[in-house]
Amino acid sequence: MPENLATLQDKVEYQLKRIIYSKPLLVYDMLQYHLGWQDIKGHPHGKYFGKLIRPCLCLLSCQAAGGNTSQILPAAASLELIHNFSLIHDDIEDTSCERHNQPTVWKLWGQPQAINAGDAMFTLAYLALLKLRENGVSYAKIMRSVQILSEACLKLCEGQSMDITHEKRIDVSSEDYLKMIAQKTAALIAASTSIGAYLATEDERILSSFYEFGKNLGMAYQIHDDILGIWGVEGKTGKSIKSDILLKKKTLPVIYGLENSTGKNKKNLDKLYSQSSIEEEDIIKVVEILNKSGAMNHAQKLEQHYYQQALAQLDAVGIDPFRQAPLREVVHFLISRDY
Amino acid sequence: MPENLATLQDKVEYQLKRIIYSKPLLVYDMLQYHLGWQDIKGHPHGKYFGKLIRPCLCLLSCQAAGGNTSQILPAAASLELIHNFSLIHDDIEDTSCERHNQPTVWKLWGQPQAINAGDAMFTLAYLALLKLRENGVSYAKIMRSVQILSEACLKLCEGQSMDITHEKRIDVSSEDYLKMIAQKTAALIAASTSIGAYLATEDERILSSFYEFGKNLGMAYQIHDDILGIWGVEGKTGKSIKSDILLKKKTLPVIYGLENSTGKNKKNLDKLYSQSSIEEEDIIKVVEILNKSGAMNHAQKLEQHYYQQALAQLDAVGIDPFRQAPLREVVHFLISRDY
Repeated sequence: MPENLATLQDKVEYQLKRIIYSKPLLVYDMLQYHLGWQDIKGHPHGKYFGKLIRPCLCLLSCQAAGGNTSQILPAAASLELIHNFSLIHDDIEDTSCERHNQPTVWKLWGQPQAINAGDAMFTLAYLALLKLRENGVSYAKIMRSVQILSEACLKLCEGQSMDITHEKRIDVSSEDYLKMIAQKTAALIAASTSIGAYLATEDERILSSFYEFGKNLGMAYQIHDDILGIWGVEGKTGKSIKSDILLKKKTLPVIYGLENSTGKNKKNLDKLYSQSSIEEEDIIKVVEILNKSGAMNHAQKLEQHYYQQALAQLDAVGIDPFRQAPLREVVHFLISRDY
Repeated sequence: MPENLATLQDKVEYQLKRIIYSKPLLVYDMLQYHLGWQDIKGHPHGKYFGKLIRPCLCLLSCQAAGGNTSQILPAAASLELIHNFSLIHDDIEDTSCERHNQPTVWKLWGQPQAINAGDAMFTLAYLALLKLRENGVSYAKIMRSVQILSEACLKLCEGQSMDITHEKRIDVSSEDYLKMIAQKTAALIAASTSIGAYLATEDERILSSFYEFGKNLGMAYQIHDDILGIWGVEGKTGKSIKSDILLKKKTLPVIYGLENSTGKNKKNLDKLYSQSSIEEEDIIKVVEILNKSGAMNHAQKLEQHYYQQALAQLDAVGIDPFRQAPLREVVHFLISRDY
């Protein structure tokens, strides 16, 4: 019987707790706060914040490819730690004040401590991955996992640099955007699915299918996120109010709107995105113009395209559909979620 | 004939250039600028900024322990990349505007891009280490090197967090300080010498001696740096004018001064370090009081103590003095340098 999502989430959280143990140092308090295990005063909070998407995709890919999920839990934890290091730094870079309806780490402890806490989380991701050895994974397999993870991290940094640059540009094309999210988001999700599959099998064909599966899923995932960033319900997404618009993020709907609006709408949207900043009272104007341009429909279509490409990879890999079922369920959840 | 420092520095720089190749992306321009290979406009600059201390200690430790320095160049490069990732982030955390008499990365490209560039440098350090495989180093040895490096990085983050906290405290003790520099500085230098020795030999006794050697050398190195931070000649150190004092860094001389000054001097020093900030015109007052307290002499004595401890480890390890000679030369340079 394949393991389901809830069971795996519990296992990953337990693994994470083993890695970020309670050393009596400020930096660990900060990490525990960020993950949701502690409140501001350092009291146990108990509720993990994240959706644990990357570790669960890793474990479910491993399971689908015939591997042992318990053995590779450290790898799953590692992917979640990389994701969270990037969130701590992203929040500073975007000057985001809230995440999961709570003050962000830098907002509470200041930028210097927060930059450093992100670095600690990054390091813990590598230490987690090395724990695969305790579970009997071979040195060669661990090393290749470190390689896949590191290459994904580098892409993540490349994508993040592009994204910051895009904020100041008005001429970002759909092509620029797709290149950026391939690095910033899809690379780590592709690393998650391919490390999971790789630790289960030596079959290079399966490995490459799971990489392509993760890459396409990552593209769909980011586009979905961008749609929620404009049309999502704030209480659900846990993000600050329409922060993508305030930050002038060149997400797919905005690029589409800038390219496809006409007349007065085009003039207004160009003007808003040429200003040094967009004010809260202008958010509604931006959304109205995007609505008229058909930006949501366009983004949804492109998301569907990548989603179908991802599923096609799973179809092609020729693995027993029963073993793939929980993985497909998660994929379905990811593209239908409203948070 | 053992290789000397200048030859090894050239080899490390060549290795670094192979790792940070010129991808046409902003983030790589930033890294090349930070290292000194490019000027602000992206033109070749040619002069590497750093002293390459950590990679050279790694290579010379390897040589002393009978290893092949050419084989382990990727590990040496990796240590230099970790050091430089921490410098890029430190400069943001300290709001330092200059390094090597040039604007710092965040000063030129802004904090968001600079945080991300540091993350990219961090990732490249891991990718560098994995290149040991191309030189025929075994998976097991590479994995243990990744482990030693990651543990040092975590200590570095722990120490950095303590250091930031110390800036706001007036009651930092010598013990707090020594604990902090053991993590922030000595851990990475100990990783450098022990990875070098480990890649040369399986002998756990030699390994542990080289770890202790690096740890003690790292302590002496940081105390020397702290002395230069107050009594160094600015043009030589390449740092902003007496920035340690402006930032209220609780370095060893300052802690000694706070603990050992008396009467009016004590009152004045306490007052200066209790203010929210120290102004440039007060720097001279601080230095005068420290001079009277005998803080320099105290720091020099402690530096000598750690230096002797480091050398004692080299004596005890029982390696042919001829093979150790270049390593001892570098150690001597480190504690007599004026920059």
